[in-house]
Amino acid sequence: MSVDAAELPLRLDADRARVNEVLAALFADRDTVAPRLEAAMSHGVLGNGKRLRALLVYAAGRAVGAEEDELDPAAAALELIHAYSLVHDDLPAMDDDDLRRGQPTVHRAFDEASAILAGDALQTLAFELLADAAHPRLAAMIRALARAAGREGMAAGQALDLLTVGDRLDVETLANVHRHKTGALIRAAVRLGGLTGVAETDPRLMALDDYGAAIGLAFQIQDDILDVVGDTRTLGKTSGADAARDKPTYPALLGLDVARTKARGLLEEALDALAPLGDAGAPLADLACYMIERDY
Amino acid sequence: MSVDAAELPLRLDADRARVNEVLAALFADRDTVAPRLEAAMSHGVLGNGKRLRALLVYAAGRAVGAEEDELDPAAAALELIHAYSLVHDDLPAMDDDDLRRGQPTVHRAFDEASAILAGDALQTLAFELLADAAHPRLAAMIRALARAAGREGMAAGQALDLLTVGDRLDVETLANVHRHKTGALIRAAVRLGGLTGVAETDPRLMALDDYGAAIGLAFQIQDDILDVVGDTRTLGKTSGADAARDKPTYPALLGLDVARTKARGLLEEALDALAPLGDAGAPLADLACYMIERDY
Repeated sequence: MSVDAAELPLRLDADRARVNEVLAALFADRDTVAPRLEAAMSHGVLGNGKRLRALLVYAAGRAVGAEEDELDPAAAALELIHAYSLVHDDLPAMDDDDLRRGQPTVHRAFDEASAILAGDALQTLAFELLADAAHPRLAAMIRALARAAGREGMAAGQALDLLTVGDRLDVETLANVHRHKTGALIRAAVRLGGLTGVAETDPRLMALDDYGAAIGLAFQIQDDILDVVGDTRTLGKTSGADAARDKPTYPALLGLDVARTKARGLLEEALDALAPLGDAGAPLADLACYMIERDY
Repeated sequence: MSVDAAELPLRLDADRARVNEVLAALFADRDTVAPRLEAAMSHGVLGNGKRLRALLVYAAGRAVGAEEDELDPAAAALELIHAYSLVHDDLPAMDDDDLRRGQPTVHRAFDEASAILAGDALQTLAFELLADAAHPRLAAMIRALARAAGREGMAAGQALDLLTVGDRLDVETLANVHRHKTGALIRAAVRLGGLTGVAETDPRLMALDDYGAAIGLAFQIQDDILDVVGDTRTLGKTSGADAARDKPTYPALLGLDVARTKARGLLEEALDALAPLGDAGAPLADLACYMIERDY
């Protein structure tokens, strides 16, 4: 890695603090007509998230010369979409989870109707935030975010995931679920960061897309691995939950060692993809290693 | 009215057919990764809706010189947002409705998880569609649509509505619920049509905003009235449903006659607001009368 290993966590902490501030500001000093809805929304998005999607926006943006202030709306928008998806995924009709990020899920802390509406309004807020910033490439940004979140992206992945509970899948099908459910939004994070700095036709954006595709899948494999080997305290959610509800995972299909090898192979792919960025890609390389080698 | 009374239904039918075609095209000949999700989405948005929001987009757009093709994305986006809200409102945790537009609701025809995801993805698709069209005033359009749909608009109204079931409200509070729950999106429909043709600073857009605000509330009062006097067959939903679940309505608070007078007063306001548009505003005047004097 090109930077001092001690520097990375500090930079990530700074970026996390940065996006947390942007998100908190969305809920501060507001004279709102529906305070309970706002409370449910902020419960769903504020707090100690990993903020990986925001970290990717900042890192990808910096790699192509974008300013931090310009990146704030995209970073926050990605976290709002991610938060909305968690609020809805946790609902009784979906994964029925009680705990998220070490806290009661929104429908447990409030009620089901509030959780449905809070998720809905968090999604809306993501698009509103991008529109308010009115970046010259707003159309490309909204398009990338909406495709990643919608019926060919995250929502499709979630739908596929629900259909496959209890099924014996092959690895190809499982990868397809993951590419949509988690991968699409991670790719979008990298792309929106890139689009903040350069045009759609810039070859560096294509390099970023390849990077995003590789780490997206690698990240999910690592998530599956951690569901097996992690503990509930460090994960902030119930460990072993996937196995308990008979969800197919990489370790279950391939064994832990093969799953780990696959994640490392994808990490290599991600690092290779960064070549066109030269030295400017180094922080993205560090971030990829951090995401895939994490134990939380 | 300035046009032949026989012409209006024909034009509205043509506009309805137009937006239905745009919506149907979103689901035709697609090679999708999640067919069940797509089916739930199209169940939620296709079919015999009144398409009032689309009619308003077309009428407002034409009044300021926009072309029909340019108006298609906004017309469809409004209907997608409206459809998403109905799919979620019908859920067991919300209004728990079995019937919508004469058909089983999405969670009855499919399942709850599919209905949650279909609503989510319908919302996303609205923003994607606008972004794809990449209108020069895209930022203002997304902003208007997102504000109308989100935590200070429709979602807030729905949250307030759930809180007030069984309460004795005053008319002011009820108007506040309606202004958010239904009014915001109707205003947005008029505004997006307007923005397709003229800039945010154009005085005609302000006239359209005033018109939209008045018909938005008038429309909901009429909806309340029809819930009392209509029958299930022509409404396509269960008549008397509001009273049955003890929801506050205008007729319940004011009596039927006063509610009718209030709706007509707002209709007058809407017509007055159109003065700056001159003759170009006549179709909007006709549409307002049609919306408020309807019996379906």
